[in-house]
Amino acid sequence: MLDNKHLNHFKSIVGVENVKSDKAHLIAYCYDATRERFEPDAVVFPRDEQDVSNILKYCNEHKIIIVPRGAGSCFTGGALPANGGIILSLERHMNQILEIDMENMLGIVQPGVINMDFQKAAEAVGLFYPPDPASEMYCTLGGNVAENAGGMRAAKYGITKDYVVALRAVLPNGEIITAGKKTIKDVAGYNTAGILIASEGTLAVITQITLKLIPKPKLKKTYMGIFPDVTKAMNAVFKSLAAGANPVAMEFLDALVIDALKQKFPDIDLPQNAGGILVGDVDGSSEAEITSQLETLKQSFKDNGSNGFIVAQSDEEADKLWFARKNASPATMVYGTKKLNEDISVPRSKLPEALEEIYKIADKYGLKAPCFGHSGDGNIHVNVMVKDKNNEQEMADGHKAIEEIFQLVVDMGGTLSGEHGIGLSKAPFMNIAFNQAEMELFKSIKKAFDPNNILNPFKMGL
Amino acid sequence: MLDNKHLNHFKSIVGVENVKSDKAHLIAYCYDATRERFEPDAVVFPRDEQDVSNILKYCNEHKIIIVPRGAGSCFTGGALPANGGIILSLERHMNQILEIDMENMLGIVQPGVINMDFQKAAEAVGLFYPPDPASEMYCTLGGNVAENAGGMRAAKYGITKDYVVALRAVLPNGEIITAGKKTIKDVAGYNTAGILIASEGTLAVITQITLKLIPKPKLKKTYMGIFPDVTKAMNAVFKSLAAGANPVAMEFLDALVIDALKQKFPDIDLPQNAGGILVGDVDGSSEAEITSQLETLKQSFKDNGSNGFIVAQSDEEADKLWFARKNASPATMVYGTKKLNEDISVPRSKLPEALEEIYKIADKYGLKAPCFGHSGDGNIHVNVMVKDKNNEQEMADGHKAIEEIFQLVVDMGGTLSGEHGIGLSKAPFMNIAFNQAEMELFKSIKKAFDPNNILNPFKMGL
Repeated sequence: MLDNKHLNHFKSIVGVENVKSDKAHLIAYCYDATRERFEPDAVVFPRDEQDVSNILKYCNEHKIIIVPRGAGSCFTGGALPANGGIILSLERHMNQILEIDMENMLGIVQPGVINMDFQKAAEAVGLFYPPDPASEMYCTLGGNVAENAGGMRAAKYGITKDYVVALRAVLPNGEIITAGKKTIKDVAGYNTAGILIASEGTLAVITQITLKLIPKPKLKKTYMGIFPDVTKAMNAVFKSLAAGANPVAMEFLDALVIDALKQKFPDIDLPQNAGGILVGDVDGSSEAEITSQLETLKQSFKDNGSNGFIVAQSDEEADKLWFARKNASPATMVYGTKKLNEDISVPRSKLPEALEEIYKIADKYGLKAPCFGHSGDGNIHVNVMVKDKNNEQEMADGHKAIEEIFQLVVDMGGTLSGEHGIGLSKAPFMNIAFNQAEMELFKSIKKAFDPNNILNPFKMGL
Repeated sequence: MLDNKHLNHFKSIVGVENVKSDKAHLIAYCYDATRERFEPDAVVFPRDEQDVSNILKYCNEHKIIIVPRGAGSCFTGGALPANGGIILSLERHMNQILEIDMENMLGIVQPGVINMDFQKAAEAVGLFYPPDPASEMYCTLGGNVAENAGGMRAAKYGITKDYVVALRAVLPNGEIITAGKKTIKDVAGYNTAGILIASEGTLAVITQITLKLIPKPKLKKTYMGIFPDVTKAMNAVFKSLAAGANPVAMEFLDALVIDALKQKFPDIDLPQNAGGILVGDVDGSSEAEITSQLETLKQSFKDNGSNGFIVAQSDEEADKLWFARKNASPATMVYGTKKLNEDISVPRSKLPEALEEIYKIADKYGLKAPCFGHSGDGNIHVNVMVKDKNNEQEMADGHKAIEEIFQLVVDMGGTLSGEHGIGLSKAPFMNIAFNQAEMELFKSIKKAFDPNNILNPFKMGL
């Protein structure tokens, strides 16, 4: 519990109406997409950067834990106050698009802007912001930067870090810094923006973001490649990309996901005998470019054993092709009552082997592990399904399978997380991915920014 | 002077033949492209990562300064041992291309590999490594990462940081870390690779680099836009890019550079009355794409006042168009005996104003400031020319002009350096670009990596 003295001080900074410690607010800000719950001691809604600075300075002096929070859509507990303290909620007031600079093709936003609102603002003037996490309708750009969010379009256009040009941020001591300029290139000083991206709110509170925009591609078409099994599909992923294909997205569904979709949506229009599917868009500035891209994909898929290639001829057809992928996550629930889902990532050439080994691990425990995700960038959403979440043995087996999968992936040169971050959920596995020197270095970096350990402490295994 | 005890220890690590302290070696490793000279106490040539680790561990224990060095092509003194210590030269033994991974489109190299050798190895298998600093024939990839090198192709393809997928590095305490995996996405742990890039050898010694490769574009054409003055040319830069042009390079020459070229190369074939020139390449996968790109450029240049647009029809014609840009730097020497050259960068829309103000500053001191460079990404190579370098007043005026130009650029939202780094040369100007909190943060980061301050100390104003 936070002393009233502290609550009153926060009220003196941001106004009475922007400090909440009633039960309703504590519950409203106790969760994220992990479904774990930790109530904060209070929720504070800063109105601007100066409020953030004043709050951090005070908390630093009084060693009060602060957990910055956007929309709370994180899959790994990044914004959960697992050790108490206050939630610093950026989404209520600091949610303005400050500028769309068409001359320099940049957008300047506050951290609480919703990803999709920014995409729309860019598209309204013929520009394009590619990073599109699945939560794009509600996640915030501040959270996207803090987690280095990915999305479907990463295969061609990269991820959040590829679009961050500059940041303003408040350090735990309350000092305001800028990291980066409104320039394409900047090599003066350390790349502090680079280390703030994906730091999960543990180093500083981001208060302003300058994002690169690109011209909006004129044309787009949706394709689907059908394969007899997922191994052939996964081979086609890296071989088609190495052959020069450059699709916006190249997503995959495995046989278990395809079966799940058929069970959950009996009317779904999916090819018979599809044991693996690749689906995505290609884009470009001319019909010729699109046609050439589709030809490269079709030929390369065929060379790798595909038995069908569909191109949508209308928006309705495109929606139909995308339906399976967009409903893959809920469909997997046909296999159990609890999903242990992780977003491992491997070098693309290792995708076939990674999936085969994942299935073997799940088999060993008598579990199913339907997989889908961003194959175009090597990112697999693996779902270890527990049939009965009240069965302790089965839950324990599920967790053991996940740990083995992490070890497998790291041994293959992959990573614990392609886009969801470490937060609380993956913290116990950090020692699989990092040696002692690396963990010590992370702790030194944390200490350099936050010597009193007030900012989202103990996340990421630190 | 380094105690013999230390020299003998280094010899015990790397072998007698890989430790040099004779005068010839001290002179050979005392310079870089700044033409300043500082002799090291010794030069050590590690054979592999383990040697680097052993050397750093020893130096850390004995507080011996180490300055890592690639080819010594830095423009800002990054590899100069201004405070003594040993040069750790990575170019003699650690210069192997370890792997070109075609399936994942990655290259893995040691730090001493020459940029162009890597470009050629990639192109030999149909792949492409875009970053092409002007020193590409002799600079090393380790130095490129340490400085976050740019180049002509940055306008379309970005800079070194956009291609670094993972690094191996040795910390000052001798511990070996990996930063990043062989994956497109990785959000586990802090982005230590992000902060090592552009850290100018002050945080760790990079021992292995994994670089992204892309499919080699099939076709390329060279264009030149002629303008009556540089202001119109600079307006055309950001307006054509905002209109959807996406040239590989968009380089510029101002009127002073054009005049200098005509003086130095009387036979040069440059359009009469050109007061500003834009030159570059466009590339693509089809003739249609190239034609469309060239049309966009031509129309946009015309809309912004160009009076000529040339497209090379052969490699010879392309070389002819590029000749002026490639010889711009030496040509400027017609204006003086000493060149004070800086590589400031501004938001592209500020290019016209930045150049006008730069000329005013130079005029005030009776100096000429011919400018050329990477307009496509806002990076200006400004050259304040001192007629007589032995004239102290004129030299002092030149330095005052440079300082005013830095202040101007920062006030415009730009940066001290687009690609050359800070090193020694720009260290005195860091306070123009960074506030006290930012400088304190840089120092904290330095200390987190290098508590004993042994690694390239006192660079970047730290």
